[in-house]
Amino acid sequence: MNLQNEMTDRVTYIEEVIKKYLPAEEGLQKSVIQAMNYSLLAGGKRLRPMLMQESYRMFGGENIYRDSERGKLVEPFMAAMEMIHTYSLVHDDLPAMDNDEYRRGRKTTHVVYGEAMAILAGDGLLNFAFETACKAFREAKNPEEYARVGRAMEILAGKAGVYGMLGGQVADVEAEEKDTVSSDTLLFIHENKTAAMIESCLMIGAVLAGAEEDEVRLLEKAGSNIGVAFQIQDDILDITSTLEVLGKPIGSDEKNHKQTYVSIHGMEQSKADVKRLSEEAITILASFQRRNEYLEQLVEQLISRKK
Amino acid sequence: MNLQNEMTDRVTYIEEVIKKYLPAEEGLQKSVIQAMNYSLLAGGKRLRPMLMQESYRMFGGENIYRDSERGKLVEPFMAAMEMIHTYSLVHDDLPAMDNDEYRRGRKTTHVVYGEAMAILAGDGLLNFAFETACKAFREAKNPEEYARVGRAMEILAGKAGVYGMLGGQVADVEAEEKDTVSSDTLLFIHENKTAAMIESCLMIGAVLAGAEEDEVRLLEKAGSNIGVAFQIQDDILDITSTLEVLGKPIGSDEKNHKQTYVSIHGMEQSKADVKRLSEEAITILASFQRRNEYLEQLVEQLISRKK
Repeated sequence: MNLQNEMTDRVTYIEEVIKKYLPAEEGLQKSVIQAMNYSLLAGGKRLRPMLMQESYRMFGGENIYRDSERGKLVEPFMAAMEMIHTYSLVHDDLPAMDNDEYRRGRKTTHVVYGEAMAILAGDGLLNFAFETACKAFREAKNPEEYARVGRAMEILAGKAGVYGMLGGQVADVEAEEKDTVSSDTLLFIHENKTAAMIESCLMIGAVLAGAEEDEVRLLEKAGSNIGVAFQIQDDILDITSTLEVLGKPIGSDEKNHKQTYVSIHGMEQSKADVKRLSEEAITILASFQRRNEYLEQLVEQLISRKK
Repeated sequence: MNLQNEMTDRVTYIEEVIKKYLPAEEGLQKSVIQAMNYSLLAGGKRLRPMLMQESYRMFGGENIYRDSERGKLVEPFMAAMEMIHTYSLVHDDLPAMDNDEYRRGRKTTHVVYGEAMAILAGDGLLNFAFETACKAFREAKNPEEYARVGRAMEILAGKAGVYGMLGGQVADVEAEEKDTVSSDTLLFIHENKTAAMIESCLMIGAVLAGAEEDEVRLLEKAGSNIGVAFQIQDDILDITSTLEVLGKPIGSDEKNHKQTYVSIHGMEQSKADVKRLSEEAITILASFQRRNEYLEQLVEQLISRKK
C-alpha cells in the first residue's frame, strides 16, 4: 500500500473509533449533543488521533493494526484528543473570537445552533473528552496499565490547557489586537496553539504502550518540532499557493495584515527552519529501537506538503 | 464551636487549598490566568469543596481536620470542583447566555476582561480542573489509592458534563426560550444543573477515603435529594423573602415570568417536598457506621435556610 491508501484506511478506522464514543442524541440535553456531534463529525484529517495511534504502535502497544483487544487502552484517548481539538475549533469560530461562518465548507456550530448552544457544545466536548479518556481506566488490566492511563490523563489535560493549546490561543488573540508581534511571541503561539497537541498525541500513545519517561520526553521534543515546522510551512504555503492561484504573491495573511513567520524571518530562513526542525524530528523518531516507517513518512509528508 | 464558627474555619481552609492550586499569573498567557483567578477568588460559600471534604472525613480519609499529609488526596479534587463550578458561572454570565454584569457584587469576568477572554477563562478553568485533579495521582501511595483517584476522576468528569451539570444548563437555556416548562423538565434541570455537582462532591470524598461502591451510590442519592431540595427552597425563598422586603409577594422569578417549582406545584407542596427530600438525605447520612455530625447539620441548615 502507498502512503495515501494507508492513510485513508487509518482515517476510516479513526472515524469508527470516534463514532464508538459519541454521546447518544437523546434526553432533554439532546440539542447540545447534536451540536457536539455535528462539529465532531465535520470531517478533517484526523491527524491527531492518527499520530497517537502510530506512536502507540511504535512502542508495541498494538502489533496488528485494527486489533480491537489491544487498542482498548488507546482508543478512548484517540477519541478524546479529537474532541478537544474540535472544542477548540468551535470556540475559536465564535462571534466573540474569529467570527467564522464556515469551516471545511460547512456552516460553523454557532451559525447552525446559535451562539449559546455553540458555547455549551464546546464546553460539552472538552468535558466529554475527559469522560471518554476515563473509560480507559476500565480497560486497564493491572496496576501498571492503570498508572499509564493516569499519566496519559495528566498529559492530555496539561497540553490542552493554559500551559499548552489554550495558552497559545490566548497569546494569538492578544497578538491579533496589536499591529506587531515579536518573533518570540509568534514562536510561543506556534509552540502552544499547534505543537502542544502534537506533543500530547505522541507522548500519550507512547505512555499507554509502556514507553519509558526518557523516551516520552524525546517524543515531546519531536512533537514540538513537527508542530512548529507544520505552522511555518502553513505560513510559507499561504504565500506560495496564492502566488500559484492568483499569479501574484499576496497571501491571505498578508492581506489581513497578519504577521507570520515568513514576514518576520523571510522566506529563505523559514524554509531552512522547516528543514532543520523536521530533520531533527525524524532523527528522534528513527533513534528508537523499534521503528514506525509509516509514522516517519507521515511526518515528512505533513511538513513538506504543498497544500 | 457552633456551626457558624466551624463553617468560617472551614471556608478559610478551603480558600487556602484553592490558592495552593491557582495557576501563577505569568507568561504570555498571563491575561487569561488573571481572568481565571479573578473569577475563582470572587468569594462564594465554597459549599462544594466543603461537602467533599466532609464526606472524605466521614469515611475516615482524614481524622484530624487540616492535616496536610492525609488531605493530599482530596485537596486537588476540592480545588478542581470549585474550578468547575466557577467555569460554569463565567460561561453562564456571558452575553450570549444570561448576560449578567454583576455577580456577588463584583463585575462579571466578561465585563472586566472582555467576551473573548471570558470564554477562554471558562475553558481554561474547566481544563485546569482536570489538570489539578490529576495531581492526586502523584499523591497516591499504592495501587489501591491510585485506583480511587481514577474513579474520582470518572465521577468528576461525568457529573459535570452532558449527563450532569452541563445537560441541566442546556435544558435550562431551552426552557427559558419557551413560555412553559413541564414539571418533569424542571426536575431534570434541578437534578442536573444543581444536584449533579452535590452528588459528585459527596461521592468523590467517599471514594477517595476508600468507601465501598454501594456506599457511594447511597451518597449519590443523598446528594440528589440535597441538591433538588436546595433548589426548591431557592424558589420558595424567592417569593417569601421578597414578601418580607417589599411587603408584597412578588419574587424576581415571577417578575421574569419564569416558572418555578412553586408556581407549578404550589407553596404547600413545595414545602412538603423540601421536608421529605431533606429527611431522606439525612436518613442516608445517618445510616453509615461512621457519622459526621457537622455534615448532617450543614445539610439541614442548607436546606432550611431563610435567605
